[in-house]
Amino acid sequence: MKIGILGTGMVGATLGTKLAELGHEVKMGSRTANNEKAAKWVSENGTNASQGTFAEATAFGNVVFNCTKGEGALEAVKAAGEKGLNGKVLVDVSNPLDFSKGMPPSLYASLSNTNSLGEEIQKTIPDAKVVKALNTMSCGLMVNQTLVPGSHDLFICGNDVPAKAMVTDILTSFGWTSIIDLGDITAARGTEMLLPIWVRLMMKYQSPNFNFKIVR
Amino acid sequence: MKIGILGTGMVGATLGTKLAELGHEVKMGSRTANNEKAAKWVSENGTNASQGTFAEATAFGNVVFNCTKGEGALEAVKAAGEKGLNGKVLVDVSNPLDFSKGMPPSLYASLSNTNSLGEEIQKTIPDAKVVKALNTMSCGLMVNQTLVPGSHDLFICGNDVPAKAMVTDILTSFGWTSIIDLGDITAARGTEMLLPIWVRLMMKYQSPNFNFKIVR
Repeated sequence: MKIGILGTGMVGATLGTKLAELGHEVKMGSRTANNEKAAKWVSENGTNASQGTFAEATAFGNVVFNCTKGEGALEAVKAAGEKGLNGKVLVDVSNPLDFSKGMPPSLYASLSNTNSLGEEIQKTIPDAKVVKALNTMSCGLMVNQTLVPGSHDLFICGNDVPAKAMVTDILTSFGWTSIIDLGDITAARGTEMLLPIWVRLMMKYQSPNFNFKIVR
Repeated sequence: MKIGILGTGMVGATLGTKLAELGHEVKMGSRTANNEKAAKWVSENGTNASQGTFAEATAFGNVVFNCTKGEGALEAVKAAGEKGLNGKVLVDVSNPLDFSKGMPPSLYASLSNTNSLGEEIQKTIPDAKVVKALNTMSCGLMVNQTLVPGSHDLFICGNDVPAKAMVTDILTSFGWTSIIDLGDITAARGTEMLLPIWVRLMMKYQSPNFNFKIVR
């Protein structure tokens, strides 16, 4: 498959590397076509890896992963372009974390509680098929479920059922065995609002290697 | 021990009954001294059970459980009285859920994200020892961990370490074996913000009999 990645940080690089390893062609997009971090990632990831602008990565991918920081996510999605994203599966991995007052972060008030970043992206590009996933764990765990022993869960939501099935296939290829579909994109409120306790737990355990499990 | 319960709903009645069964003397408090729901609960719970106003239940208890609905919690705590609550352990079980726009509820904006109901109660009665606990599960599960099979977690937080130890002893007497201390009362933001995904999961599973587990 051809996959576009928006964002050159740790999340984008980790997902991009895993996807390239699995045989997908991956283009990492950023504000500028010649971003240094993207160039470094390309140099480390062989012939399946390439780079470009947000719009180029979007045009390239059958599926696009938004791995930008929450504060820049809407801007990146707008730069990727409504035309490019229309009809496309857009996996939103980002969280609306506001670090402006230090640790622990809060969520941006306009993007939480009665809204969410996932929903806002869906409203921004109504014809994209936004699937919220992977935003409740560290990037190491996203691509390696065994970093945390035993059974634990990955949450997914979105309005388009075939898009969720496509993303579930990709997540299954990463090794994920327990994927909980929470319903439409408004459920992103719930998964993004997991971040405050996630950050607390990370500070308590001094490690990001833990995950949520729903026991029943 | 003598225990005061603020609130006559299902949560207050369930916790009150369990505490009376365990041999504690329990006074259920409400706005008026002769509340009908409290009278019914007293009639069903033997000589360990009594009723009174919020202030009377508070004066009675060595420990006080706030089991009011989130929308009335601050009012109830104020009615209980700063004088009565000063120096006392106040276990806050409530959540700032706003059902005014139907299901699923949001949280009250002024009591979430950069604040929480637990913190607001602590700010309202600075000399009370507020411990946030039990707010991330159904009331049936609060007093019967085995409603959900296997191992799963109960979150606790608060500023006063001996108060948390005292509440942990009570929770242990309920049967709880995994109690995670998240730190000071600001961690109530994280546990209260679990409610949106909790409500989604309850709607999905059509049952409140599930719980969170942190796997690591």
